[in-house]
Amino acid sequence: MNLPTRVRIVEMGPRDGLQNEKQIVSTEIKVELIARLGAAGLSAIEAASFVSPRWVPQMGDAADVMARIERLPGVSYPVLTPNLQGFEAALAAGATEVAVFGAASESFSRKNINCSIAESLVRFEPVMAAAQAAGIRVRGYVSCVLGCPYEGEISPEAVAGVAATLFEMGCYEVSLGDTIGAGTPGKTRRMLDAVARRVPVDKLAGHYHDTYGQAVANVYASLEAGVACFDSAVAGLGGCPYAPGASGNVATEDVVYMLDGLGIETGISLDALVDTAGWISERLGRPPASKVARAVLAKRAKACH
Amino acid sequence: MNLPTRVRIVEMGPRDGLQNEKQIVSTEIKVELIARLGAAGLSAIEAASFVSPRWVPQMGDAADVMARIERLPGVSYPVLTPNLQGFEAALAAGATEVAVFGAASESFSRKNINCSIAESLVRFEPVMAAAQAAGIRVRGYVSCVLGCPYEGEISPEAVAGVAATLFEMGCYEVSLGDTIGAGTPGKTRRMLDAVARRVPVDKLAGHYHDTYGQAVANVYASLEAGVACFDSAVAGLGGCPYAPGASGNVATEDVVYMLDGLGIETGISLDALVDTAGWISERLGRPPASKVARAVLAKRAKACH
Repeated sequence: MNLPTRVRIVEMGPRDGLQNEKQIVSTEIKVELIARLGAAGLSAIEAASFVSPRWVPQMGDAADVMARIERLPGVSYPVLTPNLQGFEAALAAGATEVAVFGAASESFSRKNINCSIAESLVRFEPVMAAAQAAGIRVRGYVSCVLGCPYEGEISPEAVAGVAATLFEMGCYEVSLGDTIGAGTPGKTRRMLDAVARRVPVDKLAGHYHDTYGQAVANVYASLEAGVACFDSAVAGLGGCPYAPGASGNVATEDVVYMLDGLGIETGISLDALVDTAGWISERLGRPPASKVARAVLAKRAKACH
Repeated sequence: MNLPTRVRIVEMGPRDGLQNEKQIVSTEIKVELIARLGAAGLSAIEAASFVSPRWVPQMGDAADVMARIERLPGVSYPVLTPNLQGFEAALAAGATEVAVFGAASESFSRKNINCSIAESLVRFEPVMAAAQAAGIRVRGYVSCVLGCPYEGEISPEAVAGVAATLFEMGCYEVSLGDTIGAGTPGKTRRMLDAVARRVPVDKLAGHYHDTYGQAVANVYASLEAGVACFDSAVAGLGGCPYAPGASGNVATEDVVYMLDGLGIETGISLDALVDTAGWISERLGRPPASKVARAVLAKRAKACH
């Protein structure tokens, strides 16, 4: 086994997590969540999405969030920007890193943003140019890399094509998203091997949802393929332990627990992370959707009695 | 990657699962659960435990269960027998396969059965002799193979020693249990490599609890080590999605989903398994503690509207 010695986690809780929660969380709580995540050692925290609040009301306070967060040295706070308008709003709000996204599935692209994959990538060209002019880093996302809700199987080559285009357009890193959480380790490995033939593996990130309970195993298979960056959400935000079938990003604490066990450095305090998971879950009025947070919090509660 | 092409699942739901549920489940439901699991394609279903009902009231109807289950051809129904008295009761109830257990942790052994590991293994000698005389197969369990609630770390060599003793005493297979679910894939691999130097890998099974969300990844790491038998419980029985920190065996459907995705044969129908998970969870009055069951049941419910 030849796993990476250090892994970078990009925290998705405040954006991909809260965006998929039913309730709208206050700006105050978002700002405190981001502060707690920074204090726990996260070095990259996706803070908001500059999309139209008509489409994603959960992210309607993006500019406010960016204005109010305290920026820790060495920590990046990327934001999602679907188009030039979003990018300009993000820039005005003080964003220093943004993210753009494309789908690996034609059906998903058409159903969600009403254009082909190729058209969606062309739309990002002005964003890339404006970002370059402003000296702002751009991260790329590819969705549906291990399956599509409309067309099922997605070929590794289709994923590799979109990833390579985003990389060639200037994205410093490409995050590969299992949007429907349907992947298993073998499929993950085959997809990564195909993408790594087009984009250097140290420019790739794994972004796995845990819908079918496979995400931690998929992270492990990705480590074996040399991937050393993963997206995850504290408390498994975006998924709900009550709601049948609702499962979001893999929980940051479940990933960090595994990495700690593998002796892989992350710079993140698992204890502080579990505190944060407990804190935000209380705000949402439910237990964390993360096994590690539930186990550690139960152990602590027991130790107090 | 050189994974096994076929995996055997030993279903733990009716025994290790229901034994750790707070409520006592009726004999009727147990018998129907076992029938449904057999119909879903499970070829080994641990059906009961012949322990004193003073210690485990959930298993007080073991003889009744054995009398009432319909035995499918090609399916084994092992039962747990802690001592000769339990073995004799199991034999009288028509058991044709039994299981004995030892801990890899001295503290766990002393706290739980009030004797050393060595003493506990000596106690099984009359059971092994009686089983051999009756032509009954014996499976061995080792608990605490990836950590102990009292002493923390357990050395792979300690696990290998107990596993080798059980194998040499005549157990046809040794199941390695991460009782507290604390293991990660690297530790799992090191433990398995140590045990496989003493016991042939095709005589080993992995039995992982999912307390820290690592069990599916540990199964994957075990497949890479050549292990081709796993214990799991339908619906993740023994763990509760509500109770903080209560997490039992890895869910059979989460494991089978991964194996299906890896192209590994099990002979089990995932659909029938999910039906069974939904059915038993309804009887227990709560959602399944399994991501796959929740996701598939939610998908089906949506398709009906």
